[in-house]
Amino acid sequence: MELFYIPQLKEVDGLIEVFGQEARHITRVFRFKPGDEVLATNGRGEEFRLVLKKVLPGRLVAKVLEKKTGGREPGRVLVLAQAVLKGEKLAQVVEGATELGVNEVVPFISERVVGRLGEAKYRRLESVSISAMKSSMRTVLPRIGRLVDVDGLVESFCSFDQVIVLYEEEKKAGLVQVLNRDAMKIMVVIGPEGGFTPQEIEKMKAAGAVSCSLGPRRLRAETAAVAAISIVFGLLGELG
Amino acid sequence: MELFYIPQLKEVDGLIEVFGQEARHITRVFRFKPGDEVLATNGRGEEFRLVLKKVLPGRLVAKVLEKKTGGREPGRVLVLAQAVLKGEKLAQVVEGATELGVNEVVPFISERVVGRLGEAKYRRLESVSISAMKSSMRTVLPRIGRLVDVDGLVESFCSFDQVIVLYEEEKKAGLVQVLNRDAMKIMVVIGPEGGFTPQEIEKMKAAGAVSCSLGPRRLRAETAAVAAISIVFGLLGELG
Repeated sequence: MELFYIPQLKEVDGLIEVFGQEARHITRVFRFKPGDEVLATNGRGEEFRLVLKKVLPGRLVAKVLEKKTGGREPGRVLVLAQAVLKGEKLAQVVEGATELGVNEVVPFISERVVGRLGEAKYRRLESVSISAMKSSMRTVLPRIGRLVDVDGLVESFCSFDQVIVLYEEEKKAGLVQVLNRDAMKIMVVIGPEGGFTPQEIEKMKAAGAVSCSLGPRRLRAETAAVAAISIVFGLLGELG
Repeated sequence: MELFYIPQLKEVDGLIEVFGQEARHITRVFRFKPGDEVLATNGRGEEFRLVLKKVLPGRLVAKVLEKKTGGREPGRVLVLAQAVLKGEKLAQVVEGATELGVNEVVPFISERVVGRLGEAKYRRLESVSISAMKSSMRTVLPRIGRLVDVDGLVESFCSFDQVIVLYEEEKKAGLVQVLNRDAMKIMVVIGPEGGFTPQEIEKMKAAGAVSCSLGPRRLRAETAAVAAISIVFGLLGELG
Protein backbone atom coordinates (compact mmCIF):
# COMPACT_ATOMS: atom_id res chain seq x y z
CA MET A 1 0.00 0.00 0.00
CA GLU A 2 1.32 3.43 -1.00
CA LEU A 3 0.66 6.67 0.82
CA PHE A 4 0.95 9.89 -1.16
CA TYR A 5 1.85 13.27 0.29
CA ILE A 6 -0.31 16.11 -0.93
CA PRO A 7 0.41 19.12 1.29
CA GLN A 8 -2.26 21.31 -0.32
CA LEU A 9 -4.90 18.61 -0.06
CA LYS A 10 -8.12 20.59 0.17
CA GLU A 11 -11.59 19.16 -0.24
CA VAL A 12 -14.18 21.19 -2.17
CA ASP A 13 -17.63 19.58 -2.45
CA GLY A 14 -16.11 16.14 -1.75
CA LEU A 15 -13.65 16.54 -4.62
CA ILE A 16 -9.96 17.40 -4.56
CA GLU A 17 -7.55 18.49 -7.23
CA VAL A 18 -3.88 17.53 -7.21
CA PHE A 19 -1.16 19.29 -9.20
CA GLY A 20 2.59 19.19 -9.38
CA GLN A 21 5.12 16.59 -8.36
CA GLU A 22 2.90 14.17 -6.46
CA ALA A 23 0.27 14.23 -9.24
CA ARG A 24 2.99 13.29 -11.73
CA HIS A 25 4.18 10.59 -9.30
CA ILE A 26 0.71 9.09 -9.05
CA THR A 27 0.05 9.14 -12.79
CA ARG A 28 3.47 8.39 -14.26
CA VAL A 29 5.35 6.25 -11.75
CA PHE A 30 2.39 4.33 -10.42
CA ARG A 31 0.25 4.58 -13.57
CA PHE A 32 -3.00 4.89 -11.68
CA LYS A 33 -6.13 5.30 -13.82
CA PRO A 34 -9.60 6.74 -13.20
CA GLY A 35 -11.47 4.43 -10.83
CA ASP A 36 -8.31 3.43 -8.89
CA GLU A 37 -8.19 4.08 -5.16
CA VAL A 38 -5.23 5.81 -3.50
CA LEU A 39 -4.34 6.87 0.05
CA ALA A 40 -3.05 10.38 0.64
CA THR A 41 -2.10 12.56 3.59
CA ASN A 42 -1.64 16.28 3.98
CA GLY A 43 1.16 15.71 6.53
CA ARG A 44 -0.91 17.47 9.17
CA GLY A 45 -2.54 14.37 10.63
CA GLU A 46 -5.28 13.81 8.05
CA GLU A 47 -5.53 10.77 5.83
CA PHE A 48 -7.77 10.58 2.77
CA ARG A 49 -8.94 7.53 0.85
CA LEU A 50 -9.50 8.77 -2.68
CA VAL A 51 -10.91 7.40 -5.88
CA LEU A 52 -9.43 8.94 -9.01
CA LYS A 53 -11.93 10.65 -11.31
CA LYS A 54 -9.81 12.44 -13.89
CA VAL A 55 -6.16 11.70 -14.67
CA LEU A 56 -4.56 14.38 -16.85
CA PRO A 57 -0.85 15.11 -17.38
CA GLY A 58 0.33 16.66 -14.09
CA ARG A 59 -3.21 17.05 -12.74
CA LEU A 60 -5.68 14.78 -10.97
CA VAL A 61 -9.24 15.11 -9.81
CA ALA A 62 -10.32 12.68 -7.11
CA LYS A 63 -13.34 12.05 -4.91
CA VAL A 64 -12.87 11.67 -1.16
CA LEU A 65 -14.27 8.30 -0.02
CA GLU A 66 -13.08 8.52 3.57
CA LYS A 67 -11.23 10.93 5.82
CA LYS A 68 -9.44 9.86 9.02
CA THR A 69 -7.34 11.67 11.58
CA GLY A 70 -4.16 10.52 13.31
CA GLY A 71 -4.70 6.78 12.99
CA ARG A 72 -1.11 5.60 13.13
CA GLU A 73 0.38 8.53 15.06
CA PRO A 74 1.74 8.27 18.61
CA GLY A 75 -0.34 9.80 21.40
CA ARG A 76 2.71 11.54 22.91
CA VAL A 77 4.91 14.19 21.39
CA LEU A 78 8.58 13.27 21.08
CA VAL A 79 11.07 15.79 19.72
CA LEU A 80 14.60 14.71 18.86
CA ALA A 81 17.30 17.35 19.25
CA GLN A 82 20.26 16.02 17.30
CA ALA A 83 23.67 17.68 17.04
CA VAL A 84 24.80 18.21 13.46
CA LEU A 85 26.68 15.12 12.22
CA LYS A 86 29.08 14.57 9.36
CA GLY A 87 27.95 13.65 5.84
CA GLU A 88 24.76 11.65 5.43
CA LYS A 89 24.45 10.73 9.11
CA LEU A 90 22.00 13.48 10.03
CA ALA A 91 19.74 12.38 7.16
CA GLN A 92 19.92 8.80 8.45
CA VAL A 93 18.86 10.00 11.89
CA VAL A 94 15.94 11.96 10.40
CA GLU A 95 14.87 8.88 8.42
CA GLY A 96 14.80 6.51 11.42
CA ALA A 97 13.29 9.10 13.77
CA THR A 98 10.51 9.87 11.29
CA GLU A 99 9.59 6.21 10.80
CA LEU A 100 9.43 5.65 14.56
CA GLY A 101 7.08 8.60 15.05
CA VAL A 102 8.91 11.71 16.27
CA ASN A 103 7.15 15.02 15.89
CA GLU A 104 10.15 17.17 15.09
CA VAL A 105 13.91 16.94 14.65
CA VAL A 106 15.83 19.97 15.89
CA PRO A 107 19.40 20.15 14.55
CA PHE A 108 21.84 21.97 16.79
CA ILE A 109 25.45 23.06 16.99
CA SER A 110 27.59 22.29 20.03
CA GLU A 111 31.27 22.74 20.78
CA ARG A 112 32.42 19.43 19.34
CA VAL A 113 30.27 19.48 16.20
CA VAL A 114 32.51 18.97 13.17
CA GLY A 115 29.90 18.62 10.42
CA ARG A 116 28.04 21.51 8.82
CA LEU A 117 24.42 22.10 7.98
CA GLY A 118 24.16 24.30 4.93
CA GLU A 119 21.08 25.11 2.90
CA ALA A 120 21.37 22.06 0.62
CA LYS A 121 21.81 19.62 3.50
CA TYR A 122 18.89 21.21 5.33
CA ARG A 123 16.65 20.78 2.25
CA ARG A 124 17.82 17.17 2.03
CA LEU A 125 16.64 16.59 5.63
CA GLU A 126 13.21 17.91 4.70
CA SER A 127 12.98 15.62 1.70
CA VAL A 128 14.15 12.59 3.73
CA SER A 129 11.47 13.29 6.31
CA ILE A 130 8.82 13.38 3.56
CA SER A 131 9.88 10.04 2.08
CA ALA A 132 10.17 8.40 5.51
CA MET A 133 6.71 9.72 6.44
CA LYS A 134 5.29 8.13 3.29
CA SER A 135 7.14 4.82 3.61
CA SER A 136 6.15 4.46 7.27
CA MET A 137 2.51 5.36 6.44
CA ARG A 138 2.52 8.29 8.85
CA THR A 139 0.11 11.16 8.49
CA VAL A 140 2.16 13.79 10.31
CA LEU A 141 5.21 15.21 8.57
CA PRO A 142 7.91 15.82 11.20
CA ARG A 143 9.17 19.36 11.09
CA ILE A 144 12.89 19.97 10.73
CA GLY A 145 13.54 22.71 13.27
CA ARG A 146 15.75 25.65 12.48
CA LEU A 147 19.39 25.24 13.45
CA VAL A 148 20.15 26.46 16.99
CA ASP A 149 23.11 26.48 19.36
CA VAL A 150 23.06 24.90 22.84
CA ASP A 151 21.76 28.16 24.38
CA GLY A 152 18.93 28.28 21.87
CA LEU A 153 18.15 24.63 22.54
CA VAL A 154 18.06 25.20 26.30
CA GLU A 155 15.54 28.02 25.81
CA SER A 156 13.08 25.52 24.31
CA PHE A 157 13.29 23.11 27.29
CA CYS A 158 10.44 24.84 29.14
CA SER A 159 7.87 23.64 26.60
CA PHE A 160 8.53 19.95 27.45
CA ASP A 161 7.40 17.80 30.36
CA GLN A 162 10.78 16.06 30.30
CA VAL A 163 14.10 16.68 28.54
CA ILE A 164 16.49 13.71 28.45
CA VAL A 165 20.11 14.16 27.38
CA LEU A 166 22.11 11.11 26.36
CA TYR A 167 25.56 11.42 27.88
CA GLU A 168 28.21 8.75 27.53
CA GLU A 169 29.91 9.77 30.77
CA GLU A 170 26.72 9.39 32.81
CA LYS A 171 27.41 6.27 34.84
CA LYS A 172 24.54 6.43 37.32
CA ALA A 173 21.32 6.36 35.34
CA GLY A 174 20.05 4.58 32.26
CA LEU A 175 17.29 5.82 29.96
CA VAL A 176 14.80 3.23 31.24
CA GLN A 177 15.25 4.52 34.82
CA VAL A 178 15.00 8.23 34.12
CA LEU A 179 12.04 8.25 31.72
CA ASN A 180 8.96 9.86 33.21
CA ARG A 181 6.10 7.58 32.10
CA ASP A 182 3.54 10.37 32.58
CA ALA A 183 5.28 12.90 30.33
CA MET A 184 3.16 13.85 27.31
CA LYS A 185 5.81 16.01 25.64
CA ILE A 186 9.39 14.78 25.69
CA MET A 187 12.64 15.98 24.13
CA VAL A 188 15.59 13.63 23.68
CA VAL A 189 18.93 15.37 23.11
CA ILE A 190 21.81 13.56 21.37
CA GLY A 191 25.27 15.05 20.92
CA PRO A 192 27.78 14.98 18.07
CA GLU A 193 30.31 12.21 17.34
CA GLY A 194 32.69 13.65 19.97
CA GLY A 195 30.02 13.98 22.65
CA PHE A 196 29.09 16.91 24.86
CA THR A 197 31.50 18.90 27.00
CA PRO A 198 30.90 18.71 30.79
CA GLN A 199 29.96 22.44 30.64
CA GLU A 200 27.24 21.79 28.07
CA ILE A 201 25.83 18.98 30.22
CA GLU A 202 25.82 21.28 33.27
CA LYS A 203 24.07 24.01 31.32
CA MET A 204 21.34 21.61 30.16
CA LYS A 205 20.91 20.10 33.62
CA ALA A 206 20.62 23.57 35.15
CA ALA A 207 17.75 24.17 32.72
CA GLY A 208 15.94 21.05 33.93
CA ALA A 209 17.25 18.26 31.69
CA VAL A 210 18.12 14.83 33.08
CA SER A 211 21.16 13.02 31.75
CA CYS A 212 21.38 9.29 31.23
CA SER A 213 23.36 6.72 29.29
CA LEU A 214 22.48 3.93 26.90
CA GLY A 215 24.87 1.55 28.60
CA PRO A 216 28.58 0.76 28.45
CA ARG A 217 28.90 0.12 24.71
CA ARG A 218 29.80 3.10 22.53
CA LEU A 219 27.04 3.78 20.00
CA ARG A 220 27.25 5.84 16.84
CA ALA A 221 24.83 8.78 16.97
CA GLU A 222 22.66 7.15 14.26
CA THR A 223 22.23 4.01 16.35
CA ALA A 224 21.79 5.97 19.59
CA ALA A 225 18.97 8.06 18.10
CA VAL A 226 16.94 5.05 16.90
CA ALA A 227 17.68 3.18 20.16
CA ALA A 228 16.60 6.06 22.40
CA ILE A 229 13.41 6.79 20.47
CA SER A 230 12.54 3.06 20.45
CA ILE A 231 13.03 2.72 24.20
CA VAL A 232 11.02 5.88 24.98
CA PHE A 233 8.14 4.99 22.65
CA GLY A 234 8.36 1.31 23.65
CA LEU A 235 8.01 2.08 27.37
CA LEU A 236 5.20 4.56 26.70
CA GLY A 237 3.21 1.98 24.74
CA GLU A 238 3.62 3.79 21.42
CA LEU A 239 5.34 0.91 19.59
CA GLY A 240 2.66 -1.73 19.70
CA MET B 1 40.10 5.59 23.11
CA GLU B 2 40.77 2.96 20.44
CA LEU B 3 40.22 -0.77 20.82
CA PHE B 4 42.24 -3.08 18.58
CA TYR B 5 41.14 -6.52 17.46
CA ILE B 6 43.84 -9.15 17.70
CA PRO B 7 42.17 -12.54 17.23
CA GLN B 8 45.35 -14.54 17.90
CA LEU B 9 46.15 -12.58 21.03
CA LYS B 10 48.09 -15.05 23.14
CA GLU B 11 50.10 -14.19 26.21
CA VAL B 12 53.48 -15.91 26.74
CA ASP B 13 55.34 -14.94 29.91
CA GLY B 14 53.34 -11.70 30.15
CA LEU B 15 54.34 -10.70 26.61
CA ILE B 16 52.38 -10.88 23.36
CA GLU B 17 53.42 -10.60 19.75
CA VAL B 18 51.19 -9.09 17.10
CA PHE B 19 51.60 -9.62 13.34
CA GLY B 20 49.65 -8.81 10.24
CA GLN B 21 46.96 -6.27 9.52
CA GLU B 22 46.21 -5.02 13.01
CA ALA B 23 49.94 -4.64 13.79
CA ARG B 24 50.31 -2.48 10.66
CA HIS B 25 47.19 -0.57 11.72
CA ILE B 26 48.66 0.16 15.17
CA THR B 27 52.06 1.20 13.87
CA ARG B 28 51.24 2.97 10.59
CA VAL B 29 47.79 4.49 10.99
CA PHE B 30 48.01 5.34 14.67
CA ARG B 31 51.79 5.74 14.77
CA PHE B 32 52.11 4.28 18.25
CA LYS B 33 55.66 4.04 19.63
CA PRO B 34 57.34 1.88 22.29
CA GLY B 35 56.08 2.94 25.72
CA ASP B 36 52.56 3.79 24.41
CA GLU B 37 49.58 2.00 25.90
CA VAL B 38 46.88 0.38 23.77
CA LEU B 39 43.69 -1.59 24.43
CA ALA B 40 43.09 -4.82 22.53
CA THR B 41 40.56 -7.62 22.50
CA ASN B 42 40.64 -11.14 21.13
CA GLY B 43 36.92 -10.93 20.27
CA ARG B 44 36.23 -13.79 22.67
CA GLY B 45 35.43 -11.66 25.72
CA GLU B 46 38.93 -10.78 26.85
CA GLU B 47 40.33 -7.26 26.94
CA PHE B 48 44.03 -6.50 27.33
CA ARG B 49 45.70 -3.25 28.33
CA LEU B 50 49.10 -3.38 26.68
CA VAL B 51 52.25 -1.32 26.71
CA LEU B 52 54.22 -1.50 23.48
CA LYS B 53 57.79 -2.79 23.85
CA LYS B 54 59.03 -3.25 20.27
CA VAL B 55 57.50 -1.68 17.20
CA LEU B 56 58.83 -3.21 13.96
CA PRO B 57 57.35 -3.06 10.45
CA GLY B 58 54.30 -5.34 10.59
CA ARG B 59 55.22 -6.77 14.00
CA LEU B 60 54.76 -5.65 17.60
CA VAL B 61 55.86 -6.94 20.96
CA ALA B 62 53.84 -5.73 23.95
CA LYS B 63 53.63 -6.40 27.66
CA VAL B 64 50.25 -7.14 29.22
CA LEU B 65 49.52 -4.63 31.99
CA GLU B 66 45.99 -5.80 32.72
CA LYS B 67 43.55 -8.44 31.52
CA LYS B 68 39.78 -8.16 31.98
CA THR B 69 36.83 -10.31 30.93
CA GLY B 70 33.46 -9.23 29.58
CA GLY B 71 33.36 -5.74 31.05
CA ARG B 72 31.03 -4.06 28.58
CA GLU B 73 29.15 -7.14 27.37
CA PRO B 74 25.45 -7.79 28.09
CA GLY B 75 24.62 -10.47 30.63
CA ARG B 76 22.01 -12.04 28.32
CA VAL B 77 22.48 -13.63 24.95
CA LEU B 78 20.53 -12.04 22.12
CA VAL B 79 20.69 -13.50 18.61
CA LEU B 80 19.22 -11.60 15.68
CA ALA B 81 17.86 -13.71 12.83
CA GLN B 82 17.57 -11.32 9.90
CA ALA B 83 16.17 -12.19 6.48
CA VAL B 84 18.54 -11.32 3.65
CA LEU B 85 17.95 -7.73 2.51
CA LYS B 86 18.85 -5.88 -0.66
CA GLY B 87 22.19 -4.10 -1.18
CA GLU B 88 23.92 -2.65 1.86
CA LYS B 89 20.96 -3.03 4.21
CA LEU B 90 22.06 -6.31 5.75
CA ALA B 91 25.45 -4.78 6.55
CA GLN B 92 23.68 -1.80 8.19
CA VAL B 93 21.69 -4.22 10.34
CA VAL B 94 24.86 -6.08 11.36
CA GLU B 95 26.52 -2.77 12.26
CA GLY B 96 23.72 -1.54 14.54
CA ALA B 97 23.11 -4.98 16.07
CA THR B 98 26.81 -5.39 16.88
CA GLU B 99 27.06 -1.99 18.56
CA LEU B 100 24.00 -2.72 20.70
CA GLY B 101 25.43 -6.01 21.90
CA VAL B 102 23.97 -8.98 20.01
CA ASN B 103 25.84 -12.25 20.18
CA GLU B 104 25.19 -13.46 16.66
CA VAL B 105 23.41 -12.43 13.47
CA VAL B 106 21.87 -15.32 11.54
CA PRO B 107 21.00 -14.43 7.93
CA PHE B 108 18.15 -16.42 6.45
CA ILE B 109 16.17 -16.86 3.26
CA SER B 110 12.38 -16.75 3.26
CA GLU B 111 9.79 -16.78 0.50
CA ARG B 112 9.72 -13.02 -0.08
CA VAL B 113 13.48 -12.43 0.12
CA VAL B 114 14.62 -10.60 -3.02
CA GLY B 115 18.25 -9.83 -2.11
CA ARG B 116 21.09 -12.35 -2.33
CA LEU B 117 23.90 -13.24 0.04
CA GLY B 118 26.90 -14.36 -1.95
CA GLU B 119 30.41 -15.01 -0.71
CA ALA B 120 31.57 -11.38 -1.07
CA LYS B 121 28.55 -9.96 0.76
CA TYR B 122 28.97 -12.55 3.52
CA ARG B 123 32.64 -11.54 3.97
CA ARG B 124 31.53 -7.92 4.08
CA LEU B 125 29.16 -8.72 6.98
CA GLU B 126 32.07 -10.27 8.89
CA SER B 127 34.23 -7.21 8.35
CA VAL B 128 31.39 -4.84 9.36
CA SER B 129 30.91 -6.80 12.58
CA ILE B 130 34.64 -6.45 13.35
CA SER B 131 34.67 -2.69 12.85
CA ALA B 132 31.44 -2.21 14.80
CA MET B 133 32.84 -4.35 17.65
CA LYS B 134 35.90 -2.10 17.78
CA SER B 135 34.03 1.20 17.50
CA SER B 136 31.55 0.18 20.20
CA MET B 137 34.41 -1.04 22.47
CA ARG B 138 32.95 -4.52 22.70
CA THR B 139 35.11 -7.51 23.54
CA VAL B 140 32.94 -10.18 21.92
CA LEU B 141 32.89 -10.41 18.13
CA PRO B 142 29.37 -11.35 17.03
CA ARG B 143 29.39 -14.39 14.81
CA ILE B 144 27.69 -14.18 11.42
CA GLY B 145 25.77 -17.44 11.25
CA ARG B 146 25.69 -19.52 8.10
CA LEU B 147 22.79 -18.82 5.75
CA VAL B 148 19.72 -20.96 6.49
CA ASP B 149 16.15 -21.21 5.23
CA VAL B 150 13.08 -20.88 7.47
CA ASP B 151 13.12 -24.63 8.22
CA GLY B 152 16.75 -24.43 9.27
CA LEU B 153 16.00 -21.38 11.40
CA VAL B 154 13.09 -23.14 13.11
CA GLU B 155 15.40 -26.04 14.02
CA SER B 156 17.54 -23.67 16.09
CA PHE B 157 14.58 -22.35 18.14
CA CYS B 158 14.96 -25.07 20.80
CA SER B 159 18.25 -23.58 22.04
CA PHE B 160 16.55 -20.32 23.09
CA ASP B 161 14.42 -19.43 26.14
CA GLN B 162 12.30 -17.20 23.91
CA VAL B 163 11.99 -16.64 20.16
CA ILE B 164 10.22 -13.43 19.13
CA VAL B 165 9.14 -12.87 15.52
CA LEU B 166 8.32 -9.35 14.39
CA TYR B 167 5.21 -9.53 12.24
CA GLU B 168 3.54 -6.47 10.74
CA GLU B 169 0.13 -8.17 10.64
CA GLU B 170 0.21 -9.03 14.35
CA LYS B 171 -2.37 -6.64 15.78
CA LYS B 172 -2.76 -8.11 19.26
CA ALA B 173 0.64 -7.97 20.96
CA GLY B 174 3.54 -5.54 21.05
CA LEU B 175 7.16 -6.44 21.77
CA VAL B 176 7.04 -4.88 25.25
CA GLN B 177 4.12 -7.13 26.20
CA VAL B 178 5.46 -10.42 24.87
CA LEU B 179 9.07 -10.17 26.10
CA ASN B 180 9.86 -12.71 28.82
CA ARG B 181 11.96 -10.73 31.33
CA ASP B 182 13.49 -13.92 32.73
CA ALA B 183 14.79 -15.25 29.42
CA MET B 184 18.58 -15.52 29.34
CA LYS B 185 18.86 -16.54 25.69
CA ILE B 186 16.60 -14.78 23.20
CA MET B 187 16.25 -14.83 19.43
CA VAL B 188 14.57 -11.98 17.57
CA VAL B 189 13.47 -12.84 14.01
CA ILE B 190 12.97 -10.07 11.41
CA GLY B 191 11.67 -10.71 7.91
CA PRO B 192 12.58 -9.28 4.51
CA GLU B 193 11.26 -6.03 2.98
CA GLY B 194 8.06 -7.79 1.86
CA GLY B 195 7.44 -9.44 5.23
CA PHE B 196 6.66 -13.05 6.12
CA THR B 197 3.93 -15.16 4.57
CA PRO B 198 1.17 -16.32 6.97
CA GLN B 199 2.46 -19.91 6.44
CA GLU B 200 5.96 -18.93 7.61
CA ILE B 201 4.50 -17.27 10.72
CA GLU B 202 2.43 -20.39 11.47
CA LYS B 203 5.46 -22.63 11.07
CA MET B 204 7.50 -20.48 13.48
CA LYS B 205 4.67 -20.27 16.01
CA ALA B 206 4.20 -24.05 15.87
CA ALA B 207 7.88 -24.31 16.81
CA GLY B 208 7.35 -22.12 19.89
CA ALA B 209 7.96 -18.57 18.63
CA VAL B 210 5.74 -15.67 19.72
CA SER B 211 4.81 -13.03 17.17
CA CYS B 212 4.45 -9.35 17.94
CA SER B 213 4.47 -5.99 16.23
CA LEU B 214 6.41 -2.78 16.67
CA GLY B 215 3.28 -0.69 16.33
CA PRO B 216 1.21 0.75 13.51
CA ARG B 217 3.96 2.61 11.63
CA ARG B 218 5.74 0.67 8.88
CA LEU B 219 9.45 0.37 9.67
CA ARG B 220 12.27 -0.47 7.29
CA ALA B 221 14.02 -3.69 8.35
CA GLU B 222 17.14 -1.69 9.34
CA THR B 223 15.13 0.50 11.71
CA ALA B 224 13.09 -2.45 13.02
CA ALA B 225 16.24 -4.40 13.91
CA VAL B 226 17.81 -1.58 15.94
CA ALA B 227 14.42 -0.74 17.53
CA ALA B 228 13.71 -4.34 18.57
CA ILE B 229 17.19 -4.96 19.99
CA SER B 230 17.03 -1.64 21.87
CA ILE B 231 13.66 -2.44 23.42
CA VAL B 232 14.70 -5.99 24.41
CA PHE B 233 18.03 -4.91 25.90
CA GLY B 234 16.46 -1.78 27.42
CA LEU B 235 13.76 -3.75 29.25
CA LEU B 236 16.30 -6.33 30.40
CA GLY B 237 18.56 -3.66 31.91
CA GLU B 238 21.35 -4.19 29.37
CA LEU B 239 21.36 -0.65 28.00
CA GLY B 240 22.36 1.31 31.12
